[in-house]
Amino acid sequence: MGTIVIKFGGSSLSTTDKIKNAAKRIIAEKENGKNVVAVVSAMGKTTDQLLTLAGEITDHPAKREMDMLLATGEQVSISLLSMALTEMGAEAVSLTGWQAGIITEKVHNNARIVDVKTDHLEAILQEGKIIVAAGFQGVTEDGEITTLGRGGSDTTAVALAAALKAERCSICTDVTGVFTSDPRYVTEARKLASIGYDEMLELANLGAGVLHPRAVEFAKNHSVSLEVRSSIENEEGTVIEEEASMEKNLIVRGVAFEDNITRMTVFGLKDEISGLPSVFSTLAANQIDVDIIIQSQTDSETNLSFSIKDKDRQEAIDVLEKEKVTIGFDHIECETGLSKVSIVGSGMVSNPGVAAKMFAVLAENGIQSKMVSTSEIKVSVLVDADKMKPAARHLHDAFELGVLEEAASK
Amino acid sequence: MGTIVIKFGGSSLSTTDKIKNAAKRIIAEKENGKNVVAVVSAMGKTTDQLLTLAGEITDHPAKREMDMLLATGEQVSISLLSMALTEMGAEAVSLTGWQAGIITEKVHNNARIVDVKTDHLEAILQEGKIIVAAGFQGVTEDGEITTLGRGGSDTTAVALAAALKAERCSICTDVTGVFTSDPRYVTEARKLASIGYDEMLELANLGAGVLHPRAVEFAKNHSVSLEVRSSIENEEGTVIEEEASMEKNLIVRGVAFEDNITRMTVFGLKDEISGLPSVFSTLAANQIDVDIIIQSQTDSETNLSFSIKDKDRQEAIDVLEKEKVTIGFDHIECETGLSKVSIVGSGMVSNPGVAAKMFAVLAENGIQSKMVSTSEIKVSVLVDADKMKPAARHLHDAFELGVLEEAASK
Repeated sequence: MGTIVIKFGGSSLSTTDKIKNAAKRIIAEKENGKNVVAVVSAMGKTTDQLLTLAGEITDHPAKREMDMLLATGEQVSISLLSMALTEMGAEAVSLTGWQAGIITEKVHNNARIVDVKTDHLEAILQEGKIIVAAGFQGVTEDGEITTLGRGGSDTTAVALAAALKAERCSICTDVTGVFTSDPRYVTEARKLASIGYDEMLELANLGAGVLHPRAVEFAKNHSVSLEVRSSIENEEGTVIEEEASMEKNLIVRGVAFEDNITRMTVFGLKDEISGLPSVFSTLAANQIDVDIIIQSQTDSETNLSFSIKDKDRQEAIDVLEKEKVTIGFDHIECETGLSKVSIVGSGMVSNPGVAAKMFAVLAENGIQSKMVSTSEIKVSVLVDADKMKPAARHLHDAFELGVLEEAASK
Repeated sequence: MGTIVIKFGGSSLSTTDKIKNAAKRIIAEKENGKNVVAVVSAMGKTTDQLLTLAGEITDHPAKREMDMLLATGEQVSISLLSMALTEMGAEAVSLTGWQAGIITEKVHNNARIVDVKTDHLEAILQEGKIIVAAGFQGVTEDGEITTLGRGGSDTTAVALAAALKAERCSICTDVTGVFTSDPRYVTEARKLASIGYDEMLELANLGAGVLHPRAVEFAKNHSVSLEVRSSIENEEGTVIEEEASMEKNLIVRGVAFEDNITRMTVFGLKDEISGLPSVFSTLAANQIDVDIIIQSQTDSETNLSFSIKDKDRQEAIDVLEKEKVTIGFDHIECETGLSKVSIVGSGMVSNPGVAAKMFAVLAENGIQSKMVSTSEIKVSVLVDADKMKPAARHLHDAFELGVLEEAASK
């Protein structure tokens, strides 16, 4: 009998009515003749409530104790969902992270899963029972409770799917799948029937926050067939799998965008060789994420431009100015409030004209590119904030994403 | 270095400020040069909130899943208290029931502790750290989370004290100790410096709800020195220990009372021998607790009187009437709204005049005894509800409880 893993996030479990809905979907899968493992997050606002309590006690909670506290969130969800399943006539067993054999490294707040001990899980599935496992949490080999950090429940679901050799890992969420662009801004945006792991990774990293990149990467490494689908609507979602199984003629698969970006330029780097690493090691040491990087060189000086989030702007200036003598530079300039628009598609790698077409489309519509970054399956440009949505719409049109996907989904 | 166990109930942890207070008390013990193990219940209303959630999903939650759900309550408390201790400069480690090695039988909702594995606990104490352990919960040998039922956190504290050979187990609560009677009704009531296990058991069973009888019994069986004290006030509480160490001249140690009691009489039992057991097995099968029992026999018939709680009255009548033919009786009569007043003291066993004195005091004050029950260390009488408090005050006076204890506590 095939096994499927089905994950519900906090917003799909925020009330007891929503928990009952989740139970119905799980029972539908079970009635399809599958072994079912449900993975759940904490109910809606639970985590925030727990953080508020901790905040009343200390501004610097020990990481170990935060894990102890937050792990209660999913434990409430698993017990309630299990009760709902039993109430509907199914046999269900809830399991905490440690009971589900989710072994992690000895790190608190952001642990990686190192092993899944499946004996207990397999014994329960053998008895024909549904497993309801706590996402986001695990246990070290010496019995310490850990949590997995952001995207943790998605990662738990994928890890269980990999360990149990599941046919599929469904991530049930607020949206019905992965779209060619954000439907709120691009009305022609269409749901993709399937997408590759790398494409999904680029989309996820570009702010299409349906699935955490870490879970996608885990799925890619273990060849887990992932599906993003609605927790409520009974329609097909988007399958994320190896590129091989997809339509290769789709050069561009989606248009993503992200706002509140700052372009920062460090002028007059003294040392061409050591300057670049010392700028970025200084930023990294202060947890400032850098996205696009451009180095430009004239006869007289070396300049370095990069993009960061607006919120990190002041801190980036402060830490660089503090190290000014060590790094060796002249001055810093900034432009804030920019937006990033990206096209993503694995077909790009063999189509050198894609980036050129993108720049042409933007130019025709009077949209200036302020910075450009390319990878094998992605081209990103920084534009003025008020140009973000028009740029996304024009690119969506130009690459015929609405039309193509409609054809592909038949 | 001596070890002490200190337990805080839910009402002593209902807010983060109260949690900080508990942390201060724990640190005071630590600074006294002791190894400290704190045992905590769920915060104030947490259990009720969790029960409400479960109630929204099902009227018949699986017992296993209720344990899974309720066990989160103490897990929140241990992490927050541990954070508070760390914030105040102490080193603390929170432990769930399973991490603390609390092994129980394979029963949900009302498990008994069968073993405490102390290796991990001792290692943490050796490092000079404070342990904050979850009360009320444990784990079976095969990794199932269980809870201990009513009085569970008190029992956890006593079990840990016994296993760790602690010098003392302090139960911190809303009151400052065990009193000779309820100070709200008997103004002369005084706090006892010490009391015996059996006396405490009688008082606890009689409704002086400071300590759960199960915890007292566990303490008695393992010779754990128990203390009941205030979680806030910094004053000596009441020590519960072997009778041997106490003032033997105190014949009566306390006056307890309880209201809302029904006296029920089954008239005309057909079979003198089988009638009595069949009445009480019928009641027991329906979870109706019977307290005082009196059998009276005339030439013509056998009658059976017993006391139960008012709330169980209708159900008791229903189940007995249903079995009327099997049991074989004529009819049932009830008197509701009675109260029980009891005097307790281990000195009674060698003072046959105590019960007589009690009856005399009541009679002098025009208070009628409706039923009487005696044990080696207790005499209880049922009286009309409006006579409960006067009876308690007169008895408290007559046995000089206020005066004697004042002398004894010096």
